[in-house]
Parts: sequence; structure tokens; C-alpha cells
Amino acid sequence: MRATVMYGAGDVRVEEVADPVIREPADAVVRVLRSCICGSDLWPYRSMPASEHGRRMGHEFLGIIEDTGGDVTGLRRGDLVLAPFVWSDGSCDFCREGLQTSCRHGGLWGGDLDGGQGEAVRVPQAPGTLVRLPAGVDEALLPSLLTLSDVMCTGHHAAVSARVSSRTSVTVVGDGAVGLCAVLAAQRLGAEQIILMGRHKDRTDLGREFGATDVVAERGEDGIARVRELTGGDGTHAVLECVGTQDAIDTSISVVRDGGVVGRVGAAQYDEVPLGFGTIMRNIGVAGGVAPARAYIEVLLPGVLDGSLQPGKVFDAAIGLEQIPDGYRAMAGRQALKVLIRP
Amino acid sequence: MRATVMYGAGDVRVEEVADPVIREPADAVVRVLRSCICGSDLWPYRSMPASEHGRRMGHEFLGIIEDTGGDVTGLRRGDLVLAPFVWSDGSCDFCREGLQTSCRHGGLWGGDLDGGQGEAVRVPQAPGTLVRLPAGVDEALLPSLLTLSDVMCTGHHAAVSARVSSRTSVTVVGDGAVGLCAVLAAQRLGAEQIILMGRHKDRTDLGREFGATDVVAERGEDGIARVRELTGGDGTHAVLECVGTQDAIDTSISVVRDGGVVGRVGAAQYDEVPLGFGTIMRNIGVAGGVAPARAYIEVLLPGVLDGSLQPGKVFDAAIGLEQIPDGYRAMAGRQALKVLIRP
Repeated sequence: MRATVMYGAGDVRVEEVADPVIREPADAVVRVLRSCICGSDLWPYRSMPASEHGRRMGHEFLGIIEDTGGDVTGLRRGDLVLAPFVWSDGSCDFCREGLQTSCRHGGLWGGDLDGGQGEAVRVPQAPGTLVRLPAGVDEALLPSLLTLSDVMCTGHHAAVSARVSSRTSVTVVGDGAVGLCAVLAAQRLGAEQIILMGRHKDRTDLGREFGATDVVAERGEDGIARVRELTGGDGTHAVLECVGTQDAIDTSISVVRDGGVVGRVGAAQYDEVPLGFGTIMRNIGVAGGVAPARAYIEVLLPGVLDGSLQPGKVFDAAIGLEQIPDGYRAMAGRQALKVLIRP
Repeated sequence: MRATVMYGAGDVRVEEVADPVIREPADAVVRVLRSCICGSDLWPYRSMPASEHGRRMGHEFLGIIEDTGGDVTGLRRGDLVLAPFVWSDGSCDFCREGLQTSCRHGGLWGGDLDGGQGEAVRVPQAPGTLVRLPAGVDEALLPSLLTLSDVMCTGHHAAVSARVSSRTSVTVVGDGAVGLCAVLAAQRLGAEQIILMGRHKDRTDLGREFGATDVVAERGEDGIARVRELTGGDGTHAVLECVGTQDAIDTSISVVRDGGVVGRVGAAQYDEVPLGFGTIMRNIGVAGGVAPARAYIEVLLPGVLDGSLQPGKVFDAAIGLEQIPDGYRAMAGRQALKVLIRP
């Protein structure tokens, strides 16, 4: 089959790889219907050292089950299924607690396993990992359903981690696809003031459509001052850090109200968070991390199916498999916000 | 009256100062019955630059109301009252949310105001700040009641911030008075496994009496390995950081289970917390800060009054006003865990 392999920074190729087959009794093989490129795929795209062997790419996909191993119950050939970006057994203590990202027998797609950016994927721990979608679902819903693999659940995780509710004001740091989904999640949870920090007008316009009440285009000290100005000097109860840079986490700590929480979901490019004596006096919390999408899919799916939640709007380009290298270039160059793949 | 003034590192004096009088309509003057020395008083005792003017000391006290301003209702001369370590108006949004440490019209004792380590204190915002205790309370309860000014509420705040419950395992980092109160708080909240990290046997023995199930005397990597060994490799759901040094917060992050929370209450001597990519993958949270004792007094008071909660056991020495310099020396030299003052 055809699949995406990254060989180093800027070097993404679509090439022939071995067809996936059942190897373990809990495996399934899924033919990919929709996939996409993640903002986190851009980190290796910018920095990966050259590799002879290469690394399979993609961790967001939905598709049709083609084959199942002997231990797979509840799923069968022909089912439409959605895969969260971490696979998990569904039965260990972490999975039962809803933290499937720490599953004792789970892992990440890609690398030496199949990724989502190809024609098909061998799915380990299929009964714990895959979520069956209703048969005959409207094809127009597929992009929004696909966001439940990662980006929408990640935005939701930022909001849940920062305890967003109808009683909290919110700042979202970052106008990438995760930041915009975090706006949507905050709006869904009832927040009335949602300040979006971002400087790309086409993106912040979508943020306003998703529920942002204010947009702050300034960065650094100016941006912090502007958020404080919009909140009577206090900052917001919740801050959703959706970038992962040192600047973004520093800004987040500076705009959170006393007693508030920074929900961070950006893949941390920093090693430390400035949480010294001043933040002790202010009772600032930091929470979040990789989103347990498997737990959130069940929470967010009804809204996507009934059309009240439309995170699929973050996709502003759609390509076939062979155009994937162009898709990476477009996202890295900010010509595209998020690229949908139809293999 | 006589009161304690610190003039620099190691230079604590008890001397004559002006008697407190009502200055604002919401003031009260309280004659101090019991006070104490706090672990946090030792930070300036070790590092304060020499000062001609000096700085009044003490922030934990209970006593008898001697006088009240014209706006003070609900309190009168002769009432036995307890003061939390931050004064607050009781009516602003932060106070109503239970975060009186961020009160819009509040502040800390000492400095240029009266402190608790003296014969009497002018209490600003008296109706919001002071908690009236039952008349005729047994004198034997006064030490435990006094701990509600700060140290017991601070241990409780660590536990609440780290979401301790009957379903969580707990590590307490530090065997000072706050750490021991954190053990007691975790036990009160139902935790079944409480690992106390500390290496002073007399203190960890009291920790066992307060509910610690395991004691880890090792520090650094050895201590981390020992906690992991005691928890099947996982670390604990909750970690209560009760020291405030870089080493203590680093250890805390290393012994928390995936998805867990570090509740930190140690006065941070560090500027940054190691919360890089690895902790994102593990969904580690950090919460806490200065304890809103005013909110917690109401929660913990019934247990102290009925004798089921006895945090007063942290006092292992009692002195009069004139012995306060000796009390500082004893605590700084670790001859005493926590020193009670009877002015």
C-alpha cells in the first residue's frame, strides 16, 4: 500500500510499504477514509535528523474495518470506526480512570507502526482503541468526526484541565487548530468571556465564529497587558495554552487570575515553567497534557453527530495521498491551517 | 507593649513598641493568648539584610478582643478569636470564592503592622478576618486551635490542592510542621497510603502517629526510587510539597503518578518547576500556594473542638515572650520542631 514516511526535516515521501496484516489477536486492520496532518507533525518536519530508515507518519484517522484478530469482539468487517491518537487496551487501571494516554499496554501511532497518513493501518488493542460510529453517517460529518481523533479532544482537554465552566473567564493562547478547538470547547462549556490570543486574522475570524469574544493580536508584554485590560486587571480564571513554546507558557502564567489554572496541551518545547514565589502567593495551578481522546470521544460525539459542534471547520484544505508533501509544506508555511487527507 | 522585631539575619529582639490602637472603623485590638514561630519566619532569620528600622514578626495568633472600631459587628470585647495568617475583608469576590489570600483589601501581618509575636495586635478588617471561638473553650485545646492560623490549614491546602481522597495514594515531601500537618490532613481525607519523606526520626515518628503508613528517609534519586518501589513503580496520585526548595519540588514531580497532582505549599525558594515534555505525556498537574486559612478554619474547627484532630502535637516547646530569640535559635538549629509562645 501507499503510506507517508518522513526521512528528516522537510523530507516527507509517499511510498510503497508492506500491507498491514493481523499480527496479534486483538489487532484490527482499518482502511483509512479520512486522515489529516497535525500541528505536532510539524515539529519533526522542522527538526528531525536525517534517517535512512524513516518514520511512518499520521495519528488521526477514521475508516472501515477490513479484518479483525481472534480476540476482537464488538467490532467487525465493514464497521466505520474512529481512532484516537493513542491506542490503549481499555481495561488497565489508567484506561478505567479515563487516562488512556497512560495505558499500560498502549502507545502512539507511526514510528515503526503504521501511521494514519496511508491507505490502511494495523490497529493494536482494537477493542479498547477504536470507537464504532453509526452506520450510514452523513459524509459531510466526516471532517468534524475526524477532529475527535485528536485536535478537538485536545482543545477540550485544555478546557477541562483548566476547569472551564459558565462561571469562568477564559484566555486561549494560540490560534492554531488546537487553539481554535479550545475556543469551541470553552464555548461549549458555557464560558461567557473567551479571549483568543492570535495574530492571523483568518484564524481569529474562525475563532470568533467558534465563540471568542475578544481577540488579542499583541504578543509578549503587550499581549499580557491587553488581556489584563480586558479583565479589569485580573487576568482570566482559565488559560488554555495551545502552542507549547516557552513564550506561550510564560504568557499563560502571566494572564491567569489568582486561584486560576493554566490548562496546557501544547507539545512542550520548554523544560521549565516559571512558577516561583509570586505564583505561590497567587495560587496558580498548571494542569493538562496529552489529551485522553478515547475518553472524550464519547462526550463530544453526540454534538458532532447532531451538528451542534462543528470542529471540522478547522480544515481549510483537502488533498489526496500523493499530495501529502504539499500539505506539509502548506501547513509549515501557514498557507493552510489544517489539511484533510482523503487517501 | 513588648513585641518581636527582626533587624537582620539571626538578630531577633523583643522590645518595647507602641501599644496598638483602633485606627480604622473595621479594626479590632486583640490581646494575644497564644502565638508561635513559623518555619517561614526562618527564611528572613537566615537571610534578612541588616535593617535599622526592623520588621515586626509573627502571623499566627489567637487572643481576646480588647477594643473594636465603629464598623465592627459580630465581635466584641472579651471574645476569644483566632486570626488566619492573612487578613481579609470577607466581602470581595476573592473572599467570597474562598481565596481570602488574594483579598482585594487584605494583607500580611508583621512588617510595618503588628505581628503575632507580641502582647497585642491591631487587626485590620476585623469582621472579615477574625473567627470567634466558643466561650469557655478548654485551655488544653489552644495549641491545636492555634495551628488553624496557618500550619494545619497549610497542610490541608496541600492535600485539597492535590485532590486527596479515600481513592488516592499520597506522598508528603518534608517532615517539618507543615509536612506533618499535611499527613494529618491526608489521613483526615481518607487516604490509605501516605508516604512521608523525611529523615528526622522524632518528626517522622509523629508523622506515623498522624497517619503516615511509610517513611522514606532517603533523598534525591534514592528517595524517588524508594517511593516508586513502594507504589509498584507508579508514584502516588497526590504529592504534597511542604518544603519549598528546588530539590523538594523536583522530587515531587518525580514521584507523582501519571494524571496526578503536586499540591505545593512550601514558600518557593525556586523560580521554575521542571514541567517539560515528559510531564505533558504524563498529565502531571501542579496546584496550591498560600493557604486560604480563613476558609479552612470553618472546615477544620469542629474536629479540633471535638478532639478528633490534634495538630497541636507539632508544638514540642513552649516559651514566654522574652525567650523568643531562643525559640528562633532552637527552630533554626532543629532542636525544636515548632515553638509555642505564651506572651
